[in-house]
Amino acid sequence: MKARGVVCTMTQNIYDNETFFQGYSQLERSVEGLEGAAEWPAMRALLPDLNGRTVLDLGCGFGWFCRFARQQGAAHVHGIDVSENMLARAREMTADAAIIYGRADLEQLELPPASVDVAYSSLALHYIERLDALMAQVGGALAVGGRFIFSVEHPIYTAPSRPGWIVGADGQRTWPVDSYLAEGPRSTDWLAKGVIKQHRTIATYVDLVRRAGLTLHHLEEWGPTPAQIAARPDWASERQRPPFLLVAAER
Amino acid sequence: MKARGVVCTMTQNIYDNETFFQGYSQLERSVEGLEGAAEWPAMRALLPDLNGRTVLDLGCGFGWFCRFARQQGAAHVHGIDVSENMLARAREMTADAAIIYGRADLEQLELPPASVDVAYSSLALHYIERLDALMAQVGGALAVGGRFIFSVEHPIYTAPSRPGWIVGADGQRTWPVDSYLAEGPRSTDWLAKGVIKQHRTIATYVDLVRRAGLTLHHLEEWGPTPAQIAARPDWASERQRPPFLLVAAER
Repeated sequence: MKARGVVCTMTQNIYDNETFFQGYSQLERSVEGLEGAAEWPAMRALLPDLNGRTVLDLGCGFGWFCRFARQQGAAHVHGIDVSENMLARAREMTADAAIIYGRADLEQLELPPASVDVAYSSLALHYIERLDALMAQVGGALAVGGRFIFSVEHPIYTAPSRPGWIVGADGQRTWPVDSYLAEGPRSTDWLAKGVIKQHRTIATYVDLVRRAGLTLHHLEEWGPTPAQIAARPDWASERQRPPFLLVAAER
Repeated sequence: MKARGVVCTMTQNIYDNETFFQGYSQLERSVEGLEGAAEWPAMRALLPDLNGRTVLDLGCGFGWFCRFARQQGAAHVHGIDVSENMLARAREMTADAAIIYGRADLEQLELPPASVDVAYSSLALHYIERLDALMAQVGGALAVGGRFIFSVEHPIYTAPSRPGWIVGADGQRTWPVDSYLAEGPRSTDWLAKGVIKQHRTIATYVDLVRRAGLTLHHLEEWGPTPAQIAARPDWASERQRPPFLLVAAER
């Protein structure tokens, strides 16, 4: 499996924005790796056995999942990211010839057919404008029986024109949904100003899976578990509206 | 196909509440039938050819869909509802021996296996508490290749503890989502006080389809089309958050 991605006309590469990268580097999920991501146990539960498999990570960041896949016995792991900052850090943290990192814009990625057993992507696809093209590439790159496990920001989270909790006089938090059916870019200030994400509905994600020739296995609107909230009470509001959508599909 | 439903311990039968029934009877969808329901064109687009088929309508109300199915050439049509008021009106409006109406609580419904080609349900399933049992009955009642087309109130619509538009100083409407991951009953005042509906997430509806032995064909988060909004400008806000979820599945 060799990614033939070419960086040409690119969408915003916010991870190479210094302010964003500095902020991102300090998140728990950046410092602690997979265990620092609250949704990781749920993502892990969706993974098939990785032993002996060829694994592709779309938006691999610091390479935490790539290294995890190798620990689970994956034979070959390919991590793709558009950010030079992220890939440089990933390579620093990796001493394993079976993990290959490559720089590519996921908007332009071309993948050889039937070359991957497990494709994975954590919180990257909501940055992609031409997600239909990328999903088609992933669908074609998977071997028959191969799996695609991905997470994105939940559409309820990405929809609002003015995202942010509204706290009532009684302390009840509500999330102000508008523009849910108006798919397209959203500009938010998260770690840096003007971060562009693509809002899509759940129905569109499900349809993208189908049109990529994949069968939907599992859809999860993720929120923290009671045990996680007991340990981190500030996460409780994430159950008011789910922050992430988790998807498992099979070729 | 004969429904063996028995009315015993029932959930709230709000359609036999006089205030609710009077209000419901005056809705466009009650007076004008299917064409008075804004989502009907989208539901109709999900239907297979009904010619010669055995059709089951769960929550048939005034029987508009049952009569439509016969116009489309359905061989046998069974309409089930829990409301005596609705069924009495349905029978008044129907002169067709191939349409059989039956009273049953959908919570308790038992259906003979492989007896139905097309099951249909419009805005009824969000009243059902034990939806897993009903879905299993429908899954079993469908012949191989049979379809189940249903609509429910959208989870974003049903989630809030205090549903209702919030209008900002600039006129922007937002829908205050909370409790999205807290599935269970919601009491709302719609046509009558204390109408109980069951809130479920989209992921749960998708999982219920799978567990009923059905394959998801289509998921639609319905909002009015531009043409509909041009004709009815007061519907525009329904695109801020979808009011209905439409699902098509196949055995």
